[in-house]
Amino acid sequence: MIRINENYTKLKASYLFADIAKRVNAYVAANPSKPIIRLGIGDVTEPLPQVCRDALHAATDELGQRATFKGYGPEQGYAFLRDAIAQHDYAARGCKIESDEIFISDGSKCDCGNIQEIFSHDVRLAIPDPVYPVYVDTNVMAGRTGANVDGRYQGITYLECTPANGYVPAVPSVATDLIYLCFPNNPTGAVATKAQLAAWVAYAKANKAIILFDSAYEAYIRDPQIPHSIYEIEGARDVALEFRSFSKTAGFTGTRCAYLVVPKTVVAYDVAGNAHPIHALWNRRHSTKFNGVSYPVQKAAAAIYTEAGKQQTGALINHYLANAKLIRDAMTKLGFSCVGGDNAPYIWVNTGRDSWQFFDTLLNQAQVVCTPGAGFGKCGEGHVRISAFNSRENVETALARIAAALK
Amino acid sequence: MIRINENYTKLKASYLFADIAKRVNAYVAANPSKPIIRLGIGDVTEPLPQVCRDALHAATDELGQRATFKGYGPEQGYAFLRDAIAQHDYAARGCKIESDEIFISDGSKCDCGNIQEIFSHDVRLAIPDPVYPVYVDTNVMAGRTGANVDGRYQGITYLECTPANGYVPAVPSVATDLIYLCFPNNPTGAVATKAQLAAWVAYAKANKAIILFDSAYEAYIRDPQIPHSIYEIEGARDVALEFRSFSKTAGFTGTRCAYLVVPKTVVAYDVAGNAHPIHALWNRRHSTKFNGVSYPVQKAAAAIYTEAGKQQTGALINHYLANAKLIRDAMTKLGFSCVGGDNAPYIWVNTGRDSWQFFDTLLNQAQVVCTPGAGFGKCGEGHVRISAFNSRENVETALARIAAALK
Repeated sequence: MIRINENYTKLKASYLFADIAKRVNAYVAANPSKPIIRLGIGDVTEPLPQVCRDALHAATDELGQRATFKGYGPEQGYAFLRDAIAQHDYAARGCKIESDEIFISDGSKCDCGNIQEIFSHDVRLAIPDPVYPVYVDTNVMAGRTGANVDGRYQGITYLECTPANGYVPAVPSVATDLIYLCFPNNPTGAVATKAQLAAWVAYAKANKAIILFDSAYEAYIRDPQIPHSIYEIEGARDVALEFRSFSKTAGFTGTRCAYLVVPKTVVAYDVAGNAHPIHALWNRRHSTKFNGVSYPVQKAAAAIYTEAGKQQTGALINHYLANAKLIRDAMTKLGFSCVGGDNAPYIWVNTGRDSWQFFDTLLNQAQVVCTPGAGFGKCGEGHVRISAFNSRENVETALARIAAALK
Repeated sequence: MIRINENYTKLKASYLFADIAKRVNAYVAANPSKPIIRLGIGDVTEPLPQVCRDALHAATDELGQRATFKGYGPEQGYAFLRDAIAQHDYAARGCKIESDEIFISDGSKCDCGNIQEIFSHDVRLAIPDPVYPVYVDTNVMAGRTGANVDGRYQGITYLECTPANGYVPAVPSVATDLIYLCFPNNPTGAVATKAQLAAWVAYAKANKAIILFDSAYEAYIRDPQIPHSIYEIEGARDVALEFRSFSKTAGFTGTRCAYLVVPKTVVAYDVAGNAHPIHALWNRRHSTKFNGVSYPVQKAAAAIYTEAGKQQTGALINHYLANAKLIRDAMTKLGFSCVGGDNAPYIWVNTGRDSWQFFDTLLNQAQVVCTPGAGFGKCGEGHVRISAFNSRENVETALARIAAALK
């Protein structure tokens, strides 16, 4: 008799954005004449940059000629893309990352979800709260937690991000093995300083732990003092992997491309205490269960590293950051304390009340969709996330409606 | 101290196609003037159909306009593609598969590798020998096997495919829970009759087991008596999932699109014996760890279901099948007994000698790359797989060289 993976039964019944969709759909069905503005799910809205579309067209034409047709590519990604990333995202910032330490994938969600497979079943997890749900859920599915008791899974060290610590958690007092960090943060939009990240690198070294650093939003950093990569921190090459994505940098949420950096110097241990390079394990995982990213998509991603590409993606990000500033200023003016929005496309609003209730208020009274903080964890209660991904006009209309609704 | 998943240390050190690449590269380096013809790895060579390229271009243009831009799509795939599959691949063959039982993915390798996650750690596996290595390796990584002893992992019931059974295994005499089947087969090219598949469905029902049916090569079936889908067998909707891919149907190995069919009627059990629909578990896995296939790629896949698309993919497959017939006829004429090539793009040649030695002979004396059967499992020894994926000219040249070398 075939049996299920019973860890799935520990998962909470539904997914945050599905819950939101249900409430929004119910509202729309009941109020068909009132147009909704979505500042909830962090999905880009503006056109794919011209350089990326030009590259997609050209690659499509290549597939039409036998001489330039592309079948299976390297599972790890084409050298043209890995080299461009190593040069522009790392060497240019003084980080020593080799091309073959970069694994191209079809999304950071996949990478964040799959990476835990190469570690043992009993690693001790440290995960922020609030947090992108994928870090937690994929470890629950793999059986690394106990039951969900009162909104938290047993066996996880939660790193609380609160107004008291400026939403940047300090290292824990207990030893942990696998640490998820995300800066600029989703959902809070908070960023970490070099000193704060250095403390995490030192903690990982002291505990022989590994940091999984999600920097999907690094392109939004405008403060020159804030590191874009964990590898700007001395010693991070020994203890950290880094997740990056083209989704928010270049509007690729529907086009799909991302990458994971695995330095050859990061190790984990077997039961006898022997060190094993993580790079070899991940390479085996990646080449056994994945067959590379679509060739035209890889060409589109590489195009953002040209001069025209940098200009076009820069303009795209400036657009969203200008939206973010409008949102943060408006919410601050309404009396809420906020973080994010300056070096991130998200504004984390301390609402001072139940977050689903605040969500319902914005939906019902302003026809604006935000994301209730409670959906991201216990410490998200009392907050909502507002996303800057929209047109200027929609953001301005949404803010006017919110101001009227909350007056 | 962070520990590795020690199951990875059970894996054999290298991957079949990496071994082949090493030998080929060494030969090419030593003999730069002798051009190689590759009939080894099953990768398509002919241009992507015009309808698919037209769809890629049109979708790229859509991404350039705010009104038609696409961000995150449904993780399960767009309705336009799921509906086309349900209609043309299933309803048209009398199989009752609903659109929402179809999960679009970026490749069958991913689906075949990931599906095991939703089952318990101790399911009893039945896996063919010879076999596509991903079925075995992903279960080794997940800890469902013991050590590799003499070329076989402990804890797997191997389904031997030999000249004696025409390379189609009968159901085993012991109970198993999770059964991998692939027809038309990779690597043998053998096909299964309705009666043979019906025996497997009956076995699965009797044992409360699940069949994972890989039909990535169904488009190559020309014999009207051979089923294209497991769902042509009565009762299969209760016990089988089906893997399909656009890779070999429409030349998508570099473009990347596939799908997995999970009928809502297939169940697995918890430890208390309660039945759980697999559809809900897979939906949770898929939506938690995957973010959908690139929008232009989904549009390209949908294009093959138009009249022009059917004509173009039909012509592509006819081209490869005509190559296959040439290969099978030539190898038969040389005195080898062969299967495959009539309803599949692979020809499985019984060489009567060590398969790596035969590989080396073809490489060194004919400059032709095939795949040694031993790389697919113990029962592959004594055989090689020759692939029909190439131009007519290359196939004809390769066959002339092989005939001269083996005379």
